[in-house]
Amino acid sequence: MTQSFYPPQRTLMGPGPSDVNPRVSQAMSRPTIGHLDPMFVAMMDEMKAMLQYALQTRNELTIPVSAPGSAGMETCFVNLVEPGDTVIVCQNGVFGGRMKENVERCGATAVMVMDDWGRAVDANKLEDALKAHPQAKVVAFVHAETSTGASSDVKTLVELAHRYDCLTIVDAVTSLGGTELRVDEWGVDAIYSGTQKCLSCVPGLSPVSFSEAAIAAIKGRTHPVQSWFLDLNLVMGYWGAGAKRAYHHTAPVNTLYALHESLVILEEEGLENSWARHRTHHNALKAGLEALGLAFVVPEAERLPQLNAVTIPEGVDDAAVRTALLGDYNLEIGAGLGPMAGKVWRIGLMGYAARKDNVLNCLAALDEVLGRMDAPVNHGTAVAAALAAYSD
Amino acid sequence: MTQSFYPPQRTLMGPGPSDVNPRVSQAMSRPTIGHLDPMFVAMMDEMKAMLQYALQTRNELTIPVSAPGSAGMETCFVNLVEPGDTVIVCQNGVFGGRMKENVERCGATAVMVMDDWGRAVDANKLEDALKAHPQAKVVAFVHAETSTGASSDVKTLVELAHRYDCLTIVDAVTSLGGTELRVDEWGVDAIYSGTQKCLSCVPGLSPVSFSEAAIAAIKGRTHPVQSWFLDLNLVMGYWGAGAKRAYHHTAPVNTLYALHESLVILEEEGLENSWARHRTHHNALKAGLEALGLAFVVPEAERLPQLNAVTIPEGVDDAAVRTALLGDYNLEIGAGLGPMAGKVWRIGLMGYAARKDNVLNCLAALDEVLGRMDAPVNHGTAVAAALAAYSD
Repeated sequence: MTQSFYPPQRTLMGPGPSDVNPRVSQAMSRPTIGHLDPMFVAMMDEMKAMLQYALQTRNELTIPVSAPGSAGMETCFVNLVEPGDTVIVCQNGVFGGRMKENVERCGATAVMVMDDWGRAVDANKLEDALKAHPQAKVVAFVHAETSTGASSDVKTLVELAHRYDCLTIVDAVTSLGGTELRVDEWGVDAIYSGTQKCLSCVPGLSPVSFSEAAIAAIKGRTHPVQSWFLDLNLVMGYWGAGAKRAYHHTAPVNTLYALHESLVILEEEGLENSWARHRTHHNALKAGLEALGLAFVVPEAERLPQLNAVTIPEGVDDAAVRTALLGDYNLEIGAGLGPMAGKVWRIGLMGYAARKDNVLNCLAALDEVLGRMDAPVNHGTAVAAALAAYSD
Repeated sequence: MTQSFYPPQRTLMGPGPSDVNPRVSQAMSRPTIGHLDPMFVAMMDEMKAMLQYALQTRNELTIPVSAPGSAGMETCFVNLVEPGDTVIVCQNGVFGGRMKENVERCGATAVMVMDDWGRAVDANKLEDALKAHPQAKVVAFVHAETSTGASSDVKTLVELAHRYDCLTIVDAVTSLGGTELRVDEWGVDAIYSGTQKCLSCVPGLSPVSFSEAAIAAIKGRTHPVQSWFLDLNLVMGYWGAGAKRAYHHTAPVNTLYALHESLVILEEEGLENSWARHRTHHNALKAGLEALGLAFVVPEAERLPQLNAVTIPEGVDDAAVRTALLGDYNLEIGAGLGPMAGKVWRIGLMGYAARKDNVLNCLAALDEVLGRMDAPVNHGTAVAAALAAYSD
């Protein structure tokens, strides 16, 4: 007979999921009610308003997709891209590559603008591509590349795309709640995020938001949206304003309770305060990592506070270190993805995990484990450097 | 400032979500761990084995899709159907219509075999369609139509489809755990279900299972699967056996804890015992509803125990009754869908909700509310009839 599953209590400082706020866990275990219950519908309205706040938008179509971030990405592409379209995708890590997959599976052509992994998207290269491909309809890029920790300049890239009459799709999976993001002010047309990063919520939902221009494009499509589950024309009937809610699919009721609570917590803290908190703890973590001698992958000006990718020192066994951190400290940090596998660690400081105790514990644990393995780092320096950074 | 959301404690006797077992709610609120954590991977292996038991299959590819049942449906269609294919869809309610949408969005042709709503799928009509469309590649139908409460004969329909060299896609959203279902013995090629019906789990996941023949068809595709998120070639890399788990998307970790616990509970009870329990409480509910004078939509031989659709008596205001049940008894029953809206109620007895106290409470409440509205029913008879049925 299979036994109930009791997971260990980890500290989640990888690329996500991040530590879940205990208030969120509690909210999620509250009694399930129907997805058309009037009380639930009222909760949905509150959630929409709070998502609008988190994304800094008045977009009416601002909702959580009932599936993880990858499905949020797919929602943006299958609704905005039609067969035969040209989409310019700026790739500077894993997730730009996933965007390309999405474009091609929509029967469209992806024009790739390649940047180095670990660098921001280059606006000049994008402009070259826009000039070379005047038929392009959409520009897509990642705000916060989870695979490298690089942050791109959304405002500049969106302005550029609009100058060439393109709509924009922006991946904000790792940025939402952790770093500055202003959907309306920056003019983003379609954006998707995840709940398991800087919102401190469980994984399983993907907040998305669409501008009026994006909705006009969706309503003006000549081909049906290839996904029934993600077709916003149908989803809007359930999440839409004012009108009676129509059944589309059964919403993940309890996971939505969790997201609601995490957005209440974000409102209580204040969005700018949350951004500042991520920055504060990043500065301390950075001081500690650099004291150890670990080098960041991303140049300082393009670096995300919530995702710290550092190069693994020469001769150090990646998996052995992560296994020791998990086994001896219940601490999860992330491995490298794709070409960075085995070469970098990704240390997340996201949402509820972005705390002083986590920074100090992570540095102390890393210092000890690297010491145990005789790694070429400056042992015993990390915690003091972080404490000094906190008192600056 | 938005307040935390405290849902009321409802009794969920609609078409789903159904009452969640408190053990499941507790499991869901346990600490989140990483989706590649070795402890999590071990939990995934247990879950696969328990899903195989619940579905009575040895299919290696038996996993929960990270999204609700509609996404499970879409997983089956986008992986098995290619542009230009012909798919025979037997429709006897809402969900056959959704299958048609899926087929067409895959660029394939749906040949519809229409049956009356409230009746089982007619094997003779299917055979006529198979003869008329020898190019058909897939036959799709719903085992347990949630919109009407009709049960179809999976074994016979699958045998017929195989005789004409078709693969089969079966919707088992409402049947899994509540009524007999034997994937291997019946030869089903692709099946999808939901967690929020007879498994007593929260909504948000869709168990699916694929036979060797279905996997061969997926591997032999000439067009890429149009959905990146649901592409089983990729999903298998995460859920696959033996090999190292590869990151595909971030799994909904806590919802998977919930499903694990609900499958542990099903194992403890025993699958056949669960089927029998649903039948026992259905018999009592049926006795009560018939004593009141409410007529079932579905003929007895084709009726599901877990979804009881009854005709609303002449002159009775559908919404007023459901509102009174919800407001005065915290009891949710379901409205009719599509052409049955306003004409029927759907009373669910699914999973943890299939209990004696629920049957008696539902009948007492319905009797009182209908009495208050001077409905033409036999007041005061329902509870006694149900109790008599229990002691038979």
